[in-house]
Amino acid sequence: MGDPGLFKLQFAPFSSALDVGFWHELTQKKLNEYRLDEAPKDIKGYYYNGDSAGLPARLTLEFSAFDMSAPTPAHCCPAVGTLYNTNTLESFKTADKKLLLEQAANEIWESIKSGAALENPVLLNKFLLLTFADLKKYHFYYWFCYPALCLPESIPLIQGPVGLDQRFSSKQIQALERAYDDLCQTEGVTALPYFLIKYDDNMVRVSLLKHYSDFFQGQRIKSSSFQSVEVLCFRDRTMQGARDIAHSIIFEVKLPEMAFSPDCPKAVGWEKNQKGGMGPRMVNLSECMDPKRLAESSVDLNLKLMCWRLVPTLDLEKVVSVKCLLLGAGTLGCNVARTLMGWGVRHVTFVDNAKISYSNPVRQPLYEFEDCLGGGKPKALAAADRLQKIFPGVNARGFNMSIPMPGHPVNFSNITLEQARKDVEQLEQLIESHDVIFLLMDTRESRWLPAVIAASKRKLVINAALGFDTFVVMRHGLKKPKQQGAGDLCPNHSVASADLLGSSLFANIPGYKLGCYFCNDVVAPGDSTRDRTLDQQCTVSRPGLAMIAGALAVELMVSVLQHPEGGYAIASSSDDRMNEPPTSLGLVPHQIRGFLSRFDNVLPVSLAFDKCTACSSKVLDQYEREGFNFLAKVFNSSQSFLEDLTGLTLLHQETQAAEIWDMSDDETI
Amino acid sequence: MGDPGLFKLQFAPFSSALDVGFWHELTQKKLNEYRLDEAPKDIKGYYYNGDSAGLPARLTLEFSAFDMSAPTPAHCCPAVGTLYNTNTLESFKTADKKLLLEQAANEIWESIKSGAALENPVLLNKFLLLTFADLKKYHFYYWFCYPALCLPESIPLIQGPVGLDQRFSSKQIQALERAYDDLCQTEGVTALPYFLIKYDDNMVRVSLLKHYSDFFQGQRIKSSSFQSVEVLCFRDRTMQGARDIAHSIIFEVKLPEMAFSPDCPKAVGWEKNQKGGMGPRMVNLSECMDPKRLAESSVDLNLKLMCWRLVPTLDLEKVVSVKCLLLGAGTLGCNVARTLMGWGVRHVTFVDNAKISYSNPVRQPLYEFEDCLGGGKPKALAAADRLQKIFPGVNARGFNMSIPMPGHPVNFSNITLEQARKDVEQLEQLIESHDVIFLLMDTRESRWLPAVIAASKRKLVINAALGFDTFVVMRHGLKKPKQQGAGDLCPNHSVASADLLGSSLFANIPGYKLGCYFCNDVVAPGDSTRDRTLDQQCTVSRPGLAMIAGALAVELMVSVLQHPEGGYAIASSSDDRMNEPPTSLGLVPHQIRGFLSRFDNVLPVSLAFDKCTACSSKVLDQYEREGFNFLAKVFNSSQSFLEDLTGLTLLHQETQAAEIWDMSDDETI
Repeated sequence: MGDPGLFKLQFAPFSSALDVGFWHELTQKKLNEYRLDEAPKDIKGYYYNGDSAGLPARLTLEFSAFDMSAPTPAHCCPAVGTLYNTNTLESFKTADKKLLLEQAANEIWESIKSGAALENPVLLNKFLLLTFADLKKYHFYYWFCYPALCLPESIPLIQGPVGLDQRFSSKQIQALERAYDDLCQTEGVTALPYFLIKYDDNMVRVSLLKHYSDFFQGQRIKSSSFQSVEVLCFRDRTMQGARDIAHSIIFEVKLPEMAFSPDCPKAVGWEKNQKGGMGPRMVNLSECMDPKRLAESSVDLNLKLMCWRLVPTLDLEKVVSVKCLLLGAGTLGCNVARTLMGWGVRHVTFVDNAKISYSNPVRQPLYEFEDCLGGGKPKALAAADRLQKIFPGVNARGFNMSIPMPGHPVNFSNITLEQARKDVEQLEQLIESHDVIFLLMDTRESRWLPAVIAASKRKLVINAALGFDTFVVMRHGLKKPKQQGAGDLCPNHSVASADLLGSSLFANIPGYKLGCYFCNDVVAPGDSTRDRTLDQQCTVSRPGLAMIAGALAVELMVSVLQHPEGGYAIASSSDDRMNEPPTSLGLVPHQIRGFLSRFDNVLPVSLAFDKCTACSSKVLDQYEREGFNFLAKVFNSSQSFLEDLTGLTLLHQETQAAEIWDMSDDETI
Repeated sequence: MGDPGLFKLQFAPFSSALDVGFWHELTQKKLNEYRLDEAPKDIKGYYYNGDSAGLPARLTLEFSAFDMSAPTPAHCCPAVGTLYNTNTLESFKTADKKLLLEQAANEIWESIKSGAALENPVLLNKFLLLTFADLKKYHFYYWFCYPALCLPESIPLIQGPVGLDQRFSSKQIQALERAYDDLCQTEGVTALPYFLIKYDDNMVRVSLLKHYSDFFQGQRIKSSSFQSVEVLCFRDRTMQGARDIAHSIIFEVKLPEMAFSPDCPKAVGWEKNQKGGMGPRMVNLSECMDPKRLAESSVDLNLKLMCWRLVPTLDLEKVVSVKCLLLGAGTLGCNVARTLMGWGVRHVTFVDNAKISYSNPVRQPLYEFEDCLGGGKPKALAAADRLQKIFPGVNARGFNMSIPMPGHPVNFSNITLEQARKDVEQLEQLIESHDVIFLLMDTRESRWLPAVIAASKRKLVINAALGFDTFVVMRHGLKKPKQQGAGDLCPNHSVASADLLGSSLFANIPGYKLGCYFCNDVVAPGDSTRDRTLDQQCTVSRPGLAMIAGALAVELMVSVLQHPEGGYAIASSSDDRMNEPPTSLGLVPHQIRGFLSRFDNVLPVSLAFDKCTACSSKVLDQYEREGFNFLAKVFNSSQSFLEDLTGLTLLHQETQAAEIWDMSDDETI
């Protein structure tokens, strides 16, 4: 029944305006919340009715789009939408867009029929957003849809459209402004997407759609029986400081005669792309994001991916936030640092006193040929620099310093004594300010001092040492906290002997009873560097060995951190391989001893030794009581000093030395 | 009985002149020959008697010092010496220099007493050289000794010294020149360290010391009963083209009256150092050597160290000379390359088609943040560049290219088809020109083409693939050489079934019967990348895993190369861990399957599968017959093409699919 003499009402579609902030927030949501969940999500956009003429009607989504309770910007109207974020480009492409549109249109139709749209007209501002976020490249694919119902017949224009100022007097316009502002204030908003208006020459009134009946009651309806309705497209802008609604447009339409069809009319609304065709759009944000922030979020992504599907119980924060002190920046130190980077650890400190030599870069993966020139850069500093070059988000530091060692006298002059005192203080501060201490040196005796300090400070110690084709990676036993009283301080010494009896010899040994690197030794550390031939000076090992041991040292740390008891966790042994693992990442062994010639690892467990030259209470007590004075005695004395102190000397006398296997002399295992 | 009125004879000591070439050659000898052997070595120096006045008498040692048969430079006299090269600075310092000197002096004394010195006067030119070569720093410590016997009484000068031209007429000088030159010519030398001379106004005669009796027979001896002897210090130089011996000096000494004491007189001779004191000298050659050559020899050193004491039977050359093709320059590729560098492999080629993204550097140890900027450098090229930066001596190349894959059609256009043909040709050439092919990609189907080509070309294939906390590292079975006749070509297919019976199922399986990566599959490779979610697109694995798998892949290669049968070596299994290993480096397994959660590796062995979609004779025959045409069919077809070809389809029909465990789908193992 359309009248061919009349113009027809046409809708201008919304243009989608997706802010960079929206994509950034989508990235965060995807990484931290949605993960692989493809279920539809509620999101929210807004539009503004005060734009200058000529601009398309934009529906803007920004970072706040995901917070349904976020306030809508002043003088903007909200639109509610549904986000369909797919996991793959393929499912983005193959998504059934027709169906999605039909579903949305139907919801709108139902809200009209039920009257819900009168109650909450925002239900009419419904949109869809189909996305795929390629977070490896920062390419975002999207397709926006603002569903519009296509009535069976078109809607004829009876009158207009004309500017409001051509219909209303300036008095009426002012009255409309006042009435609108009052209604906004009553409703606690700064803009209304839909409202009712009635007016005559002397007054203008406005109201909410839901008050329709009351509002028009007793009112002369302009077109009888709603055959036509006057429509005000309200535009509300501020130009040069002055409120202006005069450019709003007003027109009258003939309402279609609709049979009360229960079926939803067909709908259109998928947005055309930049080329004017039906198709998705893509925005490449890799260029415009800060590369360093890009690197950070990319690195995080890989880690979070592990959680999403594979290890949902993984507590990444425990790993990422750990502060690691690497004593030794050689073959092991470099590989440990690389693995820590892979785990997202952000705080890495190196200690080493060596310079980079020409043979290092092929085995020490933080150095290059250039670092060897001019006598070689100090390893600790170069290693820290390299970490920054790999990943600018890391907090890496290097300390080019020596670690005083037993049997390496420091009392030759006041200078060396003072230097040793400074070195000890520096080392104590470094150990205090880190969570995990890695012992990665290439001599046995250089491990002694940090082992003592770390044991005293109750820090987790991860120790790695290489033979030619064998390695040991271990966590040191973690003494019970000091607060528990002197009696409980070192329960291992008394309990250990009891545990030695019976069949449970190495089963269920808690972390505080475990031995340290020196517990298996029956000689105190001494000067082992003094008279070593070339093959002993170099750490001569199969090149793959340090990579394996370095990687395992970090993986052991991570497993320990994942255990609710951390360093106190009961040690897993080889026998536990068949049992239910104690953490989501698996076992938490005491030691991993690897044999590359057999491609085999075993997981020994050993108890703390009450005559240990590093972690026994005799040594720790003396260190805690006398501090540097005790240490200086150790540095300056022959190894018999420590052996006398701990009772090892007595043990030697009581035992046939030949009966005891000296496991870790000279770093071969 | 010295005559106080007379001047005494004094000896000017030799100054040692040790050429850079000498130290370089010592380095080579130490690395390749002496190793840890501290036994004294014969060496050789020379001196020249034609230097300008004012120069000290120098005893020169150059690179030829170690070759006792090397010719002495023209107009120079040889000196024979003994090299004591110590393994440590400590044994250098503590060497018993008094004893060494006494021994040398005694040898000289004995050679005098026995007449040997008359027969071969070079025995009198004896020297000692005590050295320690710090080959990590290129610091060379040395102490030179030219033993001089100290007679109990001094030797008085009766006459002179005067220049020869003050004693001889120019006619006599010319006669001396002639006689000397004649004797040299007779002896086949260009200089004589010692000779006899007799003269009168009309003639000059010279002779060798050993002809003493004949030479002086019937001659008037100047001083009766040898109470004195005239000594000519012969100097023979060429100045501005003219022969000149006139500056030789001549003097007469009173011979000491020695009782025929059998005891060697005491001796002196250790050289003073630069400071004029008794002590060793040190020369630091690290600055003046070409840094790149320094790097090369330093890298070699570490490897040679392994041989010296630890694995004397290691054939390093087999490892160092191997040409490795790395397909994939991602997490695995980078770690494999790093380990190859550690082993001294000099020829490494990368193939990859990806660019470096921001998440890569923390896990892919050849890349840095800078490499990610501007869309990222191509991985293959950046990886090769990085190897050069690590070690300039490496021959590293990168090919930024795609590897065509089954189920990834190439027939969309002539362009893609031609590109695929070029890619296949390039890959064939690359595989042909390398010895070991590493499959290090992150999809299953990209491994298919290189697996087929490498099997056809009988190249050793090392394959590594990662799950989340599991990995497989394996060598592919190496088919028998084609020359052995068609009947023997793939004995595995018939024999394998026989071997499947009985208890020897996986014992003693030779390399040619072993399976490849696809042998365990009962589905053909297809497009697995098309619809993968983010966690499948990234290789999501525990960060330590790739380091471990990469290191093991190289160590496996090295072990295989050490086996006399190489890729045909019988596969070691977990059970062989208790047996005598087949190589000096240990086992040569078929597969290493690692389980990081248990810190465990197992060594499965599996047979080649006669319906394998990659290495079965049906596939290889077709490839060898039809070449690219066959491959194009595979790329363009669904996976059923390969399954039909190999008979897998039939197998599927015959077998309940549920009974078969699909081990390697989607790269999880």
